[in-house]
Amino acid sequence: MPIPAAAAEALAALLGRRFSTSGADRELHGQSESWHRAPPPDAVAWPETTEEVAQIAAICQRHRVPLIGWGTGTSLEAQALATQGGLVLDMLRMDRVLEIRAGDLQTTVQPGCTREALNQELRATGLFFPVDPGANASLGGMASTRASGTTAVRYGTMRDNVLALEVVLADGRVIRTGTRAAKSSAGYDLTGLFVGAEGTLGIITELTLRLHGQPEEVAAAVCGFPTLEQAVECVTATIQSGIPMARIEFIDADVVRAFNRFSGTQMHEGPHLMVEFHGAPASVQSDAEAFGALAADFGGTGFDWATTPEARAALWKMRHNAYRSCLALRPGATAVVTDVCVPMSHLPAAVADAAADIRAEGLLGPMVGHVGDGNFHAQILVMPGDEAELAAAKRVATRMAERAIAVGGTITGEHGVGIGKLPLMRAQHGEAVAVMAAIKQALDPQGIMNPGKLVPGVN
Amino acid sequence: MPIPAAAAEALAALLGRRFSTSGADRELHGQSESWHRAPPPDAVAWPETTEEVAQIAAICQRHRVPLIGWGTGTSLEAQALATQGGLVLDMLRMDRVLEIRAGDLQTTVQPGCTREALNQELRATGLFFPVDPGANASLGGMASTRASGTTAVRYGTMRDNVLALEVVLADGRVIRTGTRAAKSSAGYDLTGLFVGAEGTLGIITELTLRLHGQPEEVAAAVCGFPTLEQAVECVTATIQSGIPMARIEFIDADVVRAFNRFSGTQMHEGPHLMVEFHGAPASVQSDAEAFGALAADFGGTGFDWATTPEARAALWKMRHNAYRSCLALRPGATAVVTDVCVPMSHLPAAVADAAADIRAEGLLGPMVGHVGDGNFHAQILVMPGDEAELAAAKRVATRMAERAIAVGGTITGEHGVGIGKLPLMRAQHGEAVAVMAAIKQALDPQGIMNPGKLVPGVN
Repeated sequence: MPIPAAAAEALAALLGRRFSTSGADRELHGQSESWHRAPPPDAVAWPETTEEVAQIAAICQRHRVPLIGWGTGTSLEAQALATQGGLVLDMLRMDRVLEIRAGDLQTTVQPGCTREALNQELRATGLFFPVDPGANASLGGMASTRASGTTAVRYGTMRDNVLALEVVLADGRVIRTGTRAAKSSAGYDLTGLFVGAEGTLGIITELTLRLHGQPEEVAAAVCGFPTLEQAVECVTATIQSGIPMARIEFIDADVVRAFNRFSGTQMHEGPHLMVEFHGAPASVQSDAEAFGALAADFGGTGFDWATTPEARAALWKMRHNAYRSCLALRPGATAVVTDVCVPMSHLPAAVADAAADIRAEGLLGPMVGHVGDGNFHAQILVMPGDEAELAAAKRVATRMAERAIAVGGTITGEHGVGIGKLPLMRAQHGEAVAVMAAIKQALDPQGIMNPGKLVPGVN
Repeated sequence: MPIPAAAAEALAALLGRRFSTSGADRELHGQSESWHRAPPPDAVAWPETTEEVAQIAAICQRHRVPLIGWGTGTSLEAQALATQGGLVLDMLRMDRVLEIRAGDLQTTVQPGCTREALNQELRATGLFFPVDPGANASLGGMASTRASGTTAVRYGTMRDNVLALEVVLADGRVIRTGTRAAKSSAGYDLTGLFVGAEGTLGIITELTLRLHGQPEEVAAAVCGFPTLEQAVECVTATIQSGIPMARIEFIDADVVRAFNRFSGTQMHEGPHLMVEFHGAPASVQSDAEAFGALAADFGGTGFDWATTPEARAALWKMRHNAYRSCLALRPGATAVVTDVCVPMSHLPAAVADAAADIRAEGLLGPMVGHVGDGNFHAQILVMPGDEAELAAAKRVATRMAERAIAVGGTITGEHGVGIGKLPLMRAQHGEAVAVMAAIKQALDPQGIMNPGKLVPGVN
């Protein structure tokens, strides 16, 4: 459904050349890093102010044009694809750090600002923004998918680190949610409602984020384990013991193979944990020693400490490149990425069952995990066009999700729902899906905000 | 509006003697610890199962009877008072700890279970539930008001410690929100929506809570300061420095006077901080030393360490009795309790301005604060029936709230809205109040769930 001429005229009048229906602009905003595919959007807009976003929403509402937010296009469940056509709102021109309030450990940013750009700006302050999903995503996108990543075990997810929002609603109204106080009991937690809503309830135009002090001391290491089971059981024991890990990441033998091939490392090609400790020097030392003792109990060997900032940066850069490194294990492949998260005591079985299932289907699916949260991913490599392989990968992904639900876990720890997890939402939430639909209906009665995503059976 | 006969008959048929319209039962459920007063409810029910709560809701919906949840009756903004009449649902018979999953650091409880009862059950596990609002409140009530208290600076509020809920909706449907995973991106954060909703969207019938390991080492101390300003500036510097405080509580000279009189202490009658450190022994020592050095910079003297568990228990018991001790400073008085929370850098001015304002109005208003969060309370003592004094106390409370809003803070850090903060909700949230009203309307179209609370202009 192309955009009605009256809507296109109004948008062009408002935005000039920052509104485009050119094939190239549409194609660029119809890409996905994952296996999801959709036709490109009908048009793209690049707003520069909240007021422009509000006017765009009002125009889209009047003409019933779907409105889809776009950050860096790195979401993995097709959240930013215009699956029902419409207008993609590219937020990257709204990328400023508006204010850093170091004394309050807070910053206010525009949604197109990326996490790396923010941390660059924060360098001189001694503060940092910890949420780290790997990709250099936009902070608006990270909030919208409730992103987390390697440091969530210590610093929490976007849910925990977004204090306040400015949001443009479907009808163009602009609201502010939350406050700059560390906590509040003043009414419904609207901030928490818009975080993770994937743009289905409104467009985030400003975020106030919690900042954290750079830890006085940081220590990071890689440690190998004889088996996948022992590595994951070590994680469970570590979390249960209360050692305050800053990061504790699982990588399996296939991932190590990818690292060795594409990052030039020479690690033993078995399962490993990548860990980091933050704190005062005395704490870091006692935490690292406590973890070392636990790791030894589970057969951990060959601790390789990254002692300099450069070595640590290289270590985590390698981890962040896991997705691309693993894709390169099979040139031309794309990936079905799973994202379950389970209660800690169920983690060892969940990882082992997933590995067995991937093997049984004859697939290659390297696994990484933010295992301190019980969250792990299999990146199942499939060749575009091989429908049988894609179907097998989806079967594995669905079974992983169903097993996660059976033990009280979730079908998505951090990637969100988009269209990929939509068929599993009822199995996850039951009747609560109707409550989500009622909220969607109340805030977006015409269904123009990222339609077809997140809430099954709506639009 | 008394309960329609048909509704009373249906409720009596369902609950037998666990449904009452007796004067004594109604009076007991019409009390408030604060200055708020309302007529008693028309009836009281004591459900024992979720199914009963669902049937009660269905009956109330059919006959348009207001339904008000009741835990321990310790809320401070009249959340549990039947201000529009109706049925009070006393949840204290649903008080079981249903399951402790130590390996997952989780428990599932019924809403009438109190925090002290839960911690008693947890004793043998090495785990504890940290949220501590002072009163031995019910966990359902604590979730509904998004309670926090002395330990939130380290362990977070109920928002951070409730993982999943079972909720009975206005029409009797039962839903489950959240999961047992540490994090989830699977749709709207309904758990976060019901936490802090004060029973206006549904009745919580089951909670899954995060637990935390008992710290290996605990150290607590009291430290005096020459002036209120220096004590509060020390807090701001402590939080900005990143020392991981487990508790950091401010008490002013009036509170110390109340403690000396009613707890038999002999503290210097000036402002103090009460602090606690949790962690491995090495961490606790380095944290305590770092805090000690900062306190000295702000004139802190006379560190009094509570070195035994008994001494620590006595210290925090005294702090928890602050409300009653301060009430006793003026026999017969009741209290208007303020509850603002401001960004850290604004805390010293906020506390000083409040103290000056209370003095200028000629009132007695001892101040305590969970100052590590920027949250503090003045407990303004007023004599029942003295309308001029009550009006003066309300003026002070309103000005404190307005100053908090002006610096980006909140009108309530932990006590909630009820009816007390209702007139300030628009000043706090602006147009976002309309979004809250839309959500209320979507989930409770007949307005039977705790009507007249939290959302201004609805019901």
